[in-house]
Amino acid sequence: MTAGYVSPIEHIIDRALEEDLGSGDITTSAVIDPSTEGTARIVAKEEIVLAGIEFFSMVFSRLDPEIIVTSTYHDGDVIPEGADIGTVKGSLRGILSAERTALNFLQHLSGIATLTRQYVAKTDPSRVRVIDTRKTTPGLRILEKYAVRKGGGFNHRFGLFDGILIKDNHIAAAGSISEAVEKVRATAPHTLRVQVEVEDITQLEEAIGAGADAILLDNMSPDETREAVAVARGRVVLEASGGINLETIEEIAQTGVELISVGRLTHSARSVDISLEVI
Amino acid sequence: MTAGYVSPIEHIIDRALEEDLGSGDITTSAVIDPSTEGTARIVAKEEIVLAGIEFFSMVFSRLDPEIIVTSTYHDGDVIPEGADIGTVKGSLRGILSAERTALNFLQHLSGIATLTRQYVAKTDPSRVRVIDTRKTTPGLRILEKYAVRKGGGFNHRFGLFDGILIKDNHIAAAGSISEAVEKVRATAPHTLRVQVEVEDITQLEEAIGAGADAILLDNMSPDETREAVAVARGRVVLEASGGINLETIEEIAQTGVELISVGRLTHSARSVDISLEVI
Amino acid sequence: MTAGYVSPIEHIIDRALEEDLGSGDITTSAVIDPSTEGTARIVAKEEIVLAGIEFFSMVFSRLDPEIIVTSTYHDGDVIPEGADIGTVKGSLRGILSAERTALNFLQHLSGIATLTRQYVAKTDPSRVRVIDTRKTTPGLRILEKYAVRKGGGFNHRFGLFDGILIKDNHIAAAGSISEAVEKVRATAPHTLRVQVEVEDITQLEEAIGAGADAILLDNMSPDETREAVAVARGRVVLEASGGINLETIEEIAQTGVELISVGRLTHSARSVDISLEVI
Amino acid sequence: MTAGYVSPIEHIIDRALEEDLGSGDITTSAVIDPSTEGTARIVAKEEIVLAGIEFFSMVFSRLDPEIIVTSTYHDGDVIPEGADIGTVKGSLRGILSAERTALNFLQHLSGIATLTRQYVAKTDPSRVRVIDTRKTTPGLRILEKYAVRKGGGFNHRFGLFDGILIKDNHIAAAGSISEAVEKVRATAPHTLRVQVEVEDITQLEEAIGAGADAILLDNMSPDETREAVAVARGRVVLEASGGINLETIEEIAQTGVELISVGRLTHSARSVDISLEVI
Amino acid sequence: MTAGYVSPIEHIIDRALEEDLGSGDITTSAVIDPSTEGTARIVAKEEIVLAGIEFFSMVFSRLDPEIIVTSTYHDGDVIPEGADIGTVKGSLRGILSAERTALNFLQHLSGIATLTRQYVAKTDPSRVRVIDTRKTTPGLRILEKYAVRKGGGFNHRFGLFDGILIKDNHIAAAGSISEAVEKVRATAPHTLRVQVEVEDITQLEEAIGAGADAILLDNMSPDETREAVAVARGRVVLEASGGINLETIEEIAQTGVELISVGRLTHSARSVDISLEVI
Amino acid sequence: MTAGYVSPIEHIIDRALEEDLGSGDITTSAVIDPSTEGTARIVAKEEIVLAGIEFFSMVFSRLDPEIIVTSTYHDGDVIPEGADIGTVKGSLRGILSAERTALNFLQHLSGIATLTRQYVAKTDPSRVRVIDTRKTTPGLRILEKYAVRKGGGFNHRFGLFDGILIKDNHIAAAGSISEAVEKVRATAPHTLRVQVEVEDITQLEEAIGAGADAILLDNMSPDETREAVAVARGRVVLEASGGINLETIEEIAQTGVELISVGRLTHSARSVDISLEVI
Repeated sequence: MTAGYVSPIEHIIDRALEEDLGSGDITTSAVIDPSTEGTARIVAKEEIVLAGIEFFSMVFSRLDPEIIVTSTYHDGDVIPEGADIGTVKGSLRGILSAERTALNFLQHLSGIATLTRQYVAKTDPSRVRVIDTRKTTPGLRILEKYAVRKGGGFNHRFGLFDGILIKDNHIAAAGSISEAVEKVRATAPHTLRVQVEVEDITQLEEAIGAGADAILLDNMSPDETREAVAVARGRVVLEASGGINLETIEEIAQTGVELISVGRLTHSARSVDISLEVI
Repeated sequence: MTAGYVSPIEHIIDRALEEDLGSGDITTSAVIDPSTEGTARIVAKEEIVLAGIEFFSMVFSRLDPEIIVTSTYHDGDVIPEGADIGTVKGSLRGILSAERTALNFLQHLSGIATLTRQYVAKTDPSRVRVIDTRKTTPGLRILEKYAVRKGGGFNHRFGLFDGILIKDNHIAAAGSISEAVEKVRATAPHTLRVQVEVEDITQLEEAIGAGADAILLDNMSPDETREAVAVARGRVVLEASGGINLETIEEIAQTGVELISVGRLTHSARSVDISLEVI
Repeated sequence: MTAGYVSPIEHIIDRALEEDLGSGDITTSAVIDPSTEGTARIVAKEEIVLAGIEFFSMVFSRLDPEIIVTSTYHDGDVIPEGADIGTVKGSLRGILSAERTALNFLQHLSGIATLTRQYVAKTDPSRVRVIDTRKTTPGLRILEKYAVRKGGGFNHRFGLFDGILIKDNHIAAAGSISEAVEKVRATAPHTLRVQVEVEDITQLEEAIGAGADAILLDNMSPDETREAVAVARGRVVLEASGGINLETIEEIAQTGVELISVGRLTHSARSVDISLEVI
Repeated sequence: MTAGYVSPIEHIIDRALEEDLGSGDITTSAVIDPSTEGTARIVAKEEIVLAGIEFFSMVFSRLDPEIIVTSTYHDGDVIPEGADIGTVKGSLRGILSAERTALNFLQHLSGIATLTRQYVAKTDPSRVRVIDTRKTTPGLRILEKYAVRKGGGFNHRFGLFDGILIKDNHIAAAGSISEAVEKVRATAPHTLRVQVEVEDITQLEEAIGAGADAILLDNMSPDETREAVAVARGRVVLEASGGINLETIEEIAQTGVELISVGRLTHSARSVDISLEVI
Repeated sequence: MTAGYVSPIEHIIDRALEEDLGSGDITTSAVIDPSTEGTARIVAKEEIVLAGIEFFSMVFSRLDPEIIVTSTYHDGDVIPEGADIGTVKGSLRGILSAERTALNFLQHLSGIATLTRQYVAKTDPSRVRVIDTRKTTPGLRILEKYAVRKGGGFNHRFGLFDGILIKDNHIAAAGSISEAVEKVRATAPHTLRVQVEVEDITQLEEAIGAGADAILLDNMSPDETREAVAVARGRVVLEASGGINLETIEEIAQTGVELISVGRLTHSARSVDISLEVI
Repeated sequence: MTAGYVSPIEHIIDRALEEDLGSGDITTSAVIDPSTEGTARIVAKEEIVLAGIEFFSMVFSRLDPEIIVTSTYHDGDVIPEGADIGTVKGSLRGILSAERTALNFLQHLSGIATLTRQYVAKTDPSRVRVIDTRKTTPGLRILEKYAVRKGGGFNHRFGLFDGILIKDNHIAAAGSISEAVEKVRATAPHTLRVQVEVEDITQLEEAIGAGADAILLDNMSPDETREAVAVARGRVVLEASGGINLETIEEIAQTGVELISVGRLTHSARSVDISLEVI
């Protein structure tokens, strides 16, 4: 049943449909009879971590509520190359008109989940979390952060409104880390932790002294990061950040930080290969 | 001056700002005084093909019309690693609040232009065009197609409404290529060409015989593609398509087709590294 | 079942309902009990070509999904004066509140279809197509172009984005027809034909020489049009355009052009007389 | 200066621009340089009553605030055939891209004003008002009612929310005119008059007895209308309505009613001929 | 069944849900399993006049159409302290996520109805109506005016568009009451009454002489109000207005005016205490 | 200068203008000439804490950017009865059409700030913060939370998305406080604190043991609250909540809790009396 309230994700899907359909699918409406039914297989053309199967399904059902997508897999599952992910059944017109949009979501989000899984595999998840950043594709953040979770990662704050992160420019404008922390504490809701970005051990110590709850270690080498862990002594949450990639994450993960944020998860994941094959 | 009409691109920018700002930038509004002004340099951290500098500027100016972005470069320019792309001047609050959103656009679009340039560089642009597909990031098609052009590529149809492409499922449902072409011709505006996707030379001949204006050669090898060129004898526009990458494009480009479409341009370009450094 | 995605036509219908209902139908909500059911006949008060019965139905069902419209006719049917087009059944409140909006759509669109049929009747449809223009009522183009098709006409491009038409001002700005065509070819997707508006035979020849796919003959007399047909020798699609009316279309249709565009179809059709009679 | 608040009329204009521009004006952006300026004359190709020159101007300025429309005429003025209505100056790209949309508004609204003037000319405006109905083009009511006023007509209620009109079906459902009036009086704001539609003199007397403030005489002949005027003796406002055209309005206007409503003003006015000629 | 058309009230509900849910209910989605069902009692913690139970229900059903709200009470009922108003059944996730938003509507609207009932109780409803004003909470007018009716009050005009009220500044600008009335009569639809705000008996007489249909007596004492009633002699509708509260309404109600408008009904009603208790 | 991006607050203002203006201000457009200018004083009719003067100004400037509001006061200032808050200058049409909407915002928000100040005055702000809740008027939360701050209060989380609060129903569904905290910690971003609602000291101890960062003491008496403070020994942030009013807040404030949340600040503040007087 369709709820009246259009959720943020449904808004994104509807805009994607509008973008592709515009005034209508000329080819399909000329060639396919409205009464023709069809079935299509969703096929993984390479090994993937699935993410977005529900949104894939919503693309079809928002266009035509009688198109049904079924799948035996769930988001987060690893799907071997060549496997059938599921099927799409219903009006052939609707299937063909929504196909590309639905695949664009599924391939993009599964791409992010698949890449995230690779990062997580280089770490010991019981000791460190791989987290995302705000370096997401404009307009798709809610979906991309979901895909990160399905790949075994975790989320940083969603946006500027639900988390506090005092960065270098804030510190410069406030005069010092302490003054910046104080200004934030003077107005921020008690439900939010205060995180400070630091560039060296001196700043780290100042931030801890100022009462920060969490610290972002900006572009520190593994050695510096280890030193930061030693200095912090568990008093604050430590996040390693900056230019971390599949080659460097393993060493960073062993420094003892709790969090490693990786922009690449969302800004540079390639789409994975998934196709829809009408039977 | 702000026009009243909100263009499709401005809609995309506004939704990206909403996504990141939500109920407000808590950190910046607590720490930065509303009257503080600032200037920031936009720095290319690697060699890039620039795309989206105007949209980058619009992110700031839609939030605060007094923030001014200046640049001596234009979209399509190759910018060397380390170069200053331009500057952002105005209210420091506005600069910090819009920074991430603006960079997300610029890094994503320049990433597409940079990758497109690499594909184009493998071809002789006077003889063949590298074109995009509908495999774009949901909601960003108008921008991504722009970035492809700035990288030296060209655009395929925008969506399902402004171009005709008869694919395998249309052919199967219509009964034959000829019947599909006839059905489309019976209703389509005369302003649109009719393109048919074919999988082998037999289908190619049938499509030409049916009066197709353009042909998409689906996943053909270089040898098959050459044969298709020979068969077509210039009677139709030929587009090579399917799984073409930086390794394979050169050979395809030499077969004599006019168009090579590459999904990777938009669905798998990584972001390039650009940063904003407040002075 | 209601799809979540609101199509362009549904948007138009919803805005029309909003326009008429505002904060509510004061009279009906004061006088009619919410539980009262009703049935109404849809009556053609003159001979019409029906267009928009599905949209008429959607006006009611979007307001109240339990109101059912049934009809034995289909869009495109000629309906004799006095005939019952169908019935509307359901909540009397909903029927009365949506009645005027629903009729406004049906009378307007059937008016266009009825007028289009009159134009088409003056031609031999196997040899020439009567087509519409962009001279449509603001906001209703998708519906009016639909009505033209139901009257036996065909559509020109939908808007500025899905068809190329080089007009006099484009030619003047480019310097010549050849330069204008070249500029368009240099950027336009291969899926679009290039059409050029010409005012005389010299321009026609220049346009054909420049590689135009289609030509709009602007305000030519029947004699000039015949000459244009002779000059073109089937190399391009020819469209006669400009001030054509029910008196002049017959002669133009016999000149040999393939297309005759008529602005009057959409900008000057009168509403036909259809009423809703509650039983 | 652009106000932030988008008025209902601006919404209509923006949707019309979106409809025509979609993803962009392909022809103009390929051929016309962004820096080219132009001037165009707005020419009346027949005698018209002008309506909508400000909305015509807004179409351009909402797309590009630096395009300036000037005119020495005002809405409501009669403009002779061949006269220059005014000029449009600014970016040639913007002028060409907005031209058709702007003209569609101006030709449609001036068409309504011109037709309204013809109806008004058949009456003595000091004694009777020609008024419009809710039989307007979906989505354009606010503009069409404006055009009626500029043609010398007056407006009936805007929609179902700002006026009370008890029609036959309301009466049938309520049981009698008196009961319907009573139900409406029991809830309606005191700022609204109560109007009742009647079909004969008996109903007229019942409605006046029930305390109606105004009466709609539905489809009455001139003789019946005269009798109604005699019966009413000025106690209520009388509106003649139903099928009135340019042939019949004169006689109806002489019966003594205060108001004559004419659906044709808005549902069947043809566009007038106005063109934009770039100099 | 969900109608496609989103009514003004549904728009308000959806925006309230968006406001509270944003990118999602973090706590509930982490803790509550999607398959868990629940039931909650709606409890009146004080004696109230119920208003908004249907909107309360819509908050849940728009989020999740399978959540069902049942109640044996109707809007307008007086509910004793401690009574169960009804129950909410369905997905526990949906119930917890929508709870606060749904209660915010119900407590606010029942607060208005409860306060309105207190005002009405001080009057003889067969002789005088307690009416609201435009002093409503921005964005909630349609709901607040509904709540006033459920408390036994009546509505003034909805906004500036559906009622005429000539105030002091209008009179000053027009030059006199007569001139202001004349200007309004010259353009206003016949479906609207003309009401004039007056400050003393002289103005009252001028307004009646100018043909006003209704008069707003601005801030008059009970004695002045009585005099106004005597002067008016039933020729116009009289509304007492300005600073009337629970202490003063009784005396005003006995002056003989037909209407008493009270801004406090909507701008200063406190929320009543209603809670949702999951069983 | 108008920014293109419409902020959440501007959206609220625009909807309020739409609500009141609808198809237009009939009275003002009939009576006031478009060229007439005016000036009005904003007068405090009682002592108030000002909140919303910028939004008051935006109501006018979004309708007409040339209307200028000036004030020597700032939000948060205490303004004595009878004082001039500022002036409004510009088109008289615009001033009269926007007056009621602008005042509705200013009176409502200043009402909240004024009430908040009364609560804060009963406490020692250096030791305890008076905070708001999610019991806000639907659609106005961002403004009402602003008004609370201007009255000297502080904000709790904005909505369900930017703060974690584990309530009784979450605990019941999870099985225990510890399990609920663990589930939340397993997925929530590190930028958010975890707050738990407890009903007695046993639960308080369990929550602290489970690692909660903050505790909401639900409906505890002053004695219980004091005991909670003693038990917590500064390890967690303590918030007193539930039915606190102007009579009880003083004693609660002396118990040693850091936060006192008061629903009444937003759900039951009356509007203060402010008027606009055209000179």
